[in-house]
Amino acid sequence: MSLLQDLNWRHAVKAYDPTKKVSEQDVNSILEAARLAPTSSGLQPFRVIVVETQELKEKMVAGALNPEVMRDCSHVLVFAAWDQYSAEKIDQVYDHHTEVRELPRGRFSSYTDQLKQLYGAQTAHQHFAHTARQTYIALGLAMAQAAELKVDSTPAEGFSNAVVDEILGLHELGLKSVTLLYLGYRDAEKDWLSTMKKVRLPMEEFIIRK
Amino acid sequence: MSLLQDLNWRHAVKAYDPTKKVSEQDVNSILEAARLAPTSSGLQPFRVIVVETQELKEKMVAGALNPEVMRDCSHVLVFAAWDQYSAEKIDQVYDHHTEVRELPRGRFSSYTDQLKQLYGAQTAHQHFAHTARQTYIALGLAMAQAAELKVDSTPAEGFSNAVVDEILGLHELGLKSVTLLYLGYRDAEKDWLSTMKKVRLPMEEFIIRK
Repeated sequence: MSLLQDLNWRHAVKAYDPTKKVSEQDVNSILEAARLAPTSSGLQPFRVIVVETQELKEKMVAGALNPEVMRDCSHVLVFAAWDQYSAEKIDQVYDHHTEVRELPRGRFSSYTDQLKQLYGAQTAHQHFAHTARQTYIALGLAMAQAAELKVDSTPAEGFSNAVVDEILGLHELGLKSVTLLYLGYRDAEKDWLSTMKKVRLPMEEFIIRK
Repeated sequence: MSLLQDLNWRHAVKAYDPTKKVSEQDVNSILEAARLAPTSSGLQPFRVIVVETQELKEKMVAGALNPEVMRDCSHVLVFAAWDQYSAEKIDQVYDHHTEVRELPRGRFSSYTDQLKQLYGAQTAHQHFAHTARQTYIALGLAMAQAAELKVDSTPAEGFSNAVVDEILGLHELGLKSVTLLYLGYRDAEKDWLSTMKKVRLPMEEFIIRK
């Protein structure tokens, strides 16, 4: 199957079969797609938290728009972005880059100096606006990988960031929740969206050719 | 090839061969992946502007971090998000949904009322923060589709939004540029990144299991 076929196959599932679990192997492939996502300057300024116990899901449900979707899905992936950039974090990433590439430490120092100057002049609020955006690249690729494996998924912004951050202890990790991705297998009878036609803007309206 | 293989194959190309053009068919497939990207409430609050003339690229180069990449690539895709939500835009999308799905007009009115209430209570600044995030889902899927076709690409935030918005007349369309995606074929000799190992955080650091 091609990516376009997979994207046509998927939809945001509205009801999951609570008896079906996604295999560890499939979850790991989905996480691998998120890990391989490109990010601004390669900083990967987010982490993915994997929640699969019913106990934790029940706690995170408070404030969710579709609590039964969270309850019944197999796994919840929480995409959580750095609350801010720092010189230390930038150095850590580029020290790792030079190590893996067997380059002399400091090979990218003029570039990291630029990054430190750029982000040093910004507020933490601006930082998070930027790190949060990057998570959506990984979210999209994780959904595409799920579709390739015929694992259903539902991206979700409708939840309480405060509740999720608190329950997962994200503040202490310098992270803030951005989006969720529910994984599982649809309950075809209850999932009202599964019989509906996918709707997108026609290409001639979506694209502007110059 | 699987998505994971494609994601391992791709990298952000740093030098393009200016003599090689991406075929119209491949560009259209890449745009189709962007069009199929899921978005919050299905609103698709962005458009993709396709730039391929040298004349326009030369104008957009002002303020770009890597002007030669923009000059030498085959096509520039400009991902531009709605500057704000409005009740009219929400109705337009859901009128289209009901039409395509042959449902009675107003089938989603309680849902669209919720959306109008949500966004009605927010500022245009908050709207754009949200619409801009959505573009990154499409950006990621467009890159994945390019990789499937073995078309090289480079995502870019390093450009002048003011210049691009002005040259493409985006303000008049209620749009603001967010990211670019350069498409083309690498100049393997000049693309210093093409011989370097891909670097990502190890899975055990990227993922937090709860």
